[in-house]
Parts: sequence; C-alpha cells; structure tokens
Amino acid sequence: MTKAQLVEQIKKKKSFLCIGLDVDLEKIPQFLLKKEDPIFEFNKAIIDATHDLVVAYKPNIAFYEAYGLKGWKSLKKTIDYLNQNYPEIFTIADAKRGDIGNTSTRYAKAFFEDLNFNSLTVAPYMGSDSVEPFLAFKDKFTILLALTSNKGGLDFQGLQTGDSKVYEQVLKTALTWKNSDNLMFVAGATKAEFFKGIRKIVPNHFLLVPGIGAQGGNLKEVCKYGLTDDIGLLINSSRGIIYASNKTDFAEKAREKALLLQEEMKIYILTPRLKVSV
Amino acid sequence: MTKAQLVEQIKKKKSFLCIGLDVDLEKIPQFLLKKEDPIFEFNKAIIDATHDLVVAYKPNIAFYEAYGLKGWKSLKKTIDYLNQNYPEIFTIADAKRGDIGNTSTRYAKAFFEDLNFNSLTVAPYMGSDSVEPFLAFKDKFTILLALTSNKGGLDFQGLQTGDSKVYEQVLKTALTWKNSDNLMFVAGATKAEFFKGIRKIVPNHFLLVPGIGAQGGNLKEVCKYGLTDDIGLLINSSRGIIYASNKTDFAEKAREKALLLQEEMKIYILTPRLKVSV
Repeated sequence: MTKAQLVEQIKKKKSFLCIGLDVDLEKIPQFLLKKEDPIFEFNKAIIDATHDLVVAYKPNIAFYEAYGLKGWKSLKKTIDYLNQNYPEIFTIADAKRGDIGNTSTRYAKAFFEDLNFNSLTVAPYMGSDSVEPFLAFKDKFTILLALTSNKGGLDFQGLQTGDSKVYEQVLKTALTWKNSDNLMFVAGATKAEFFKGIRKIVPNHFLLVPGIGAQGGNLKEVCKYGLTDDIGLLINSSRGIIYASNKTDFAEKAREKALLLQEEMKIYILTPRLKVSV
Repeated sequence: MTKAQLVEQIKKKKSFLCIGLDVDLEKIPQFLLKKEDPIFEFNKAIIDATHDLVVAYKPNIAFYEAYGLKGWKSLKKTIDYLNQNYPEIFTIADAKRGDIGNTSTRYAKAFFEDLNFNSLTVAPYMGSDSVEPFLAFKDKFTILLALTSNKGGLDFQGLQTGDSKVYEQVLKTALTWKNSDNLMFVAGATKAEFFKGIRKIVPNHFLLVPGIGAQGGNLKEVCKYGLTDDIGLLINSSRGIIYASNKTDFAEKAREKALLLQEEMKIYILTPRLKVSV
C-alpha cells in the first residue's frame, strides 16, 4: 500500500482509527472457546463489525506467539482474511523486531512477504543497519519506536543527549537513513505535550499513537499537536474496543466503542483549525 | 537452570562457547533439502557433533520465523531435542523481544514456558516495565541488549548522556530493576576495549558476546577484560562454525571449528592471569 492510498482511505472513512487485535483467550467471550480457532473467530467478528469505521488493524504478535503454533495459524488466518476481504485496510504487525542486517532481512521477509502485512513495528536500539533492511521494501512501512507510552518509556528514551532527548535523536537520525520515506513512528499518547516537538522533527511522517483508552491518552490533545494536512496519525485502541463486552454482543459493543472514537475523529478531520502549525 | 549449574558446566567442559543456530536453507548442505524437516536435521547433526564442546546453543528466532509455520515447527523440534537429550546445555532464544508489561509477559510465557528455553534476548528501549516481566521467571535468564556488535550499534547506544554512554546507562539502570540477578547482557565483541568499562558496572553478570568469527571479534581481547571468577562469558559463533562445510561432512567440519575455539578457551580458563581485576 502507498501512503497516498492510506490517506485516501482516511479521508473517505473520516477515520484514522486503528484497532489492536490483542487477543487473550481469558478475555474473549467464553462461548468462542468451543470453536476450532477461537482467536480467528474473535478477530473475524471484530473486523466484520468495525471495518468501515477503521483504517488499520494491528495484531500484537506477542499475543499470538504466546499460543505457539496454534497462535501463528490464527495470525496467518487473520491477516489472510483481512487481505482477501478488506484489501484497502492498512495492516500493522506489532512485533517490535530489530536485529543485525541479515537477520532483519529475515524478519522483513516473514512479515512483509510471507504474511503480507503492510507494515511492521521495529525497535531502534541497534541502529541504522538493523532498520534499513526493512526500509528497502517498496510500499511497505517500518514503524520505528520513538516515544512509547508505558511507564518505563522514558527510562532510556527520555535521557538527555546533547540538546535532544534520546527519542528525539532517534527521529533525527532515522530521517538520514536510506528510504526514510518508508518510515512511520510510534509516539505514545500519554505524553501529548511532546507531540509538538516531535512534529518539529518529523512534520510529515505518519505517527502510530498507542495509549488511547486503556493507557489513558487524550485524543483531542494528540490531534491538536499531531495532525498534518495528510492527517498523519493512526490512533490505536485495543482493549477499550475489543473487550467492550464478553458476551454474545461483543462485536456489536466493539462497534459502538469504535464509532464513538470515529465520530470524534471526524470532527478533527473536518475542523482543521485544531491543527497547530509547526 | 541456575547460574551455578551453568558455571559448573563451563568448568567441566572447559568451554564457554555458544553456537548460534542461524539456519538458512540456502546455506545448508543441499542434500538435506530432501528430508522432511531440513532445518531440524541440520540442527540435530550440528548439536550431536558439538554438544561436548559447547555450553549453549542460540537459535536466532528470525531465521525460523522467516519460514512461517514450518520454521516454528523446526524451532520447537530443535529446543525439544536439546531439552530431552542435553538438558545440561544452556539454551538461548535470540529473539530481541520487548513490549509493554502485559505483552512482555506473553513473550516470556512463549519462550520460557511453552518452548522451555533457559533464556531470551530482550531489547531495552522501552525501559523497566518492558523487561521486569521477563525477570520475574525463576531460573530463567533475560539477556538484555547493551552494546551490540553491528555497524549501527553505536548510533544510539553510543550517545553521550551525562557522564555515561547510553549503553552504560542501560547497564546501570537495569541493575536497579527487580530480580536483576536474572539478567545477563549482550556485549558486542568488535569493541573489546569497551569490556573494561562494562565490567566496572557489571562485575559479576554473564555477558553474551556475539561477533567472534564472522563479525571479526577477538577472543583473547574479550577474555582479557571480560572474564570473571565464574568465567562470566558466553562467546557466540554462528556462521563460522555451522557453515564450515556445505557437503556431507558439514557436522564434522563444524566440530573442528568449535574445537579450535574451545581449545583456546581452555587456555584462558586455566590461566587466570589473563584476567584483569576490575
């Protein structure tokens, strides 16, 4: 998928919502456990109920890996279902991978080719040659961790180095890498005040923003500083949407939660005065 | 496995060698491709030929993930084979994982429980609550990336922050985390001169050292600064050993390469004068 296709979808749907498919067998409706592949059945129902309100789905790979081979089969069925039925939707493998060059190429092939995701989250710690192999894939996006929304996020990301924090230096350095147009960045929503600084460094790149909902982020604040002419944001919500109910109405309730967020997003898309120039 | 058991094995075998099982179907002997599971057959032959010379095996998970479900089956067969036949050997899942708390717990369960590895490599970028879930597992080790041996390793790890480099701050901060006794650290061998400084911060923790062999590290230099009374080093070699030959003698040739390294290690274990006090 190209960036232009993603932007087109956002403008058509008036949404920049991403749903995190972080499936936990202890939290999904228990009647699903009788099915042959409960994880896939859960995802399929959520996707079918919400696909017109969202522009992206993001399975967190850990949740699948935790179930071993069975989990990988569910993941493959989920991404195949998305690609076959909703090819316009942007897919994110939230895997936070990264290794030395030849190994990163392996990961890239696994997620971009075999599973055919549009994008993959990648950790920056190992530097240029751990990320550039991902960037070499045309029309695939590498979503680099910059500022994460968890409690320990600032332990190292927040260290001062010269006149920048480490996460700001990650943004600056990443822009110098080959094929940096294929980058997007993870920017945690619990720190909306940092978005202004982030937009000064990366005025045009898409930001994937976790932490709306369960992690306590604020959509309006994030949009105020993060929105660009191309929208430039993908806002993720996982638990707040997919676990809205654990009864037979789970997909319907998930749709209601997604709709609330989409309706708010629609306002921000249609009222560009909310944008702050950078 | 406990640290004491690992040290006992090292002293018995006079070896602190780890073999990286980074299996690439294009590089293994082509006659193996006729077998039902070429990756497992390759690993089994390498393991059977070298197990008395090494104390650890380290599959890099990317190489398995790249082959999809088939790769995961090969990985599971490999770790099961190791646990059943050579339970004294330390096993490392080189996966470089790391995510927010509840997700890290998922990864920990996948590698420590389902696959039953003794240890897992983890990236530090997301800080305390991304690593502590791994440390909570008793008699399992979390091998945190500190200084990596690749070209871009210093892009961020080498940034100056206060009176430390970022990788030194990672070491210092990690020591303050709960269950930090369950930590080991990745320290790249291409920068042997840095080992002295690393040992000042972590005088007793095990260091996993990649980059001997194909990446150009120097074993003697690393031992000079890195050895402790408990040895405290695991030296990894992957391509230099497992791809010593691509003919029917591949396992035998791998053994020869491993033996060369083990014989050099034996000298350093038996001549503690090489150790530098820290």
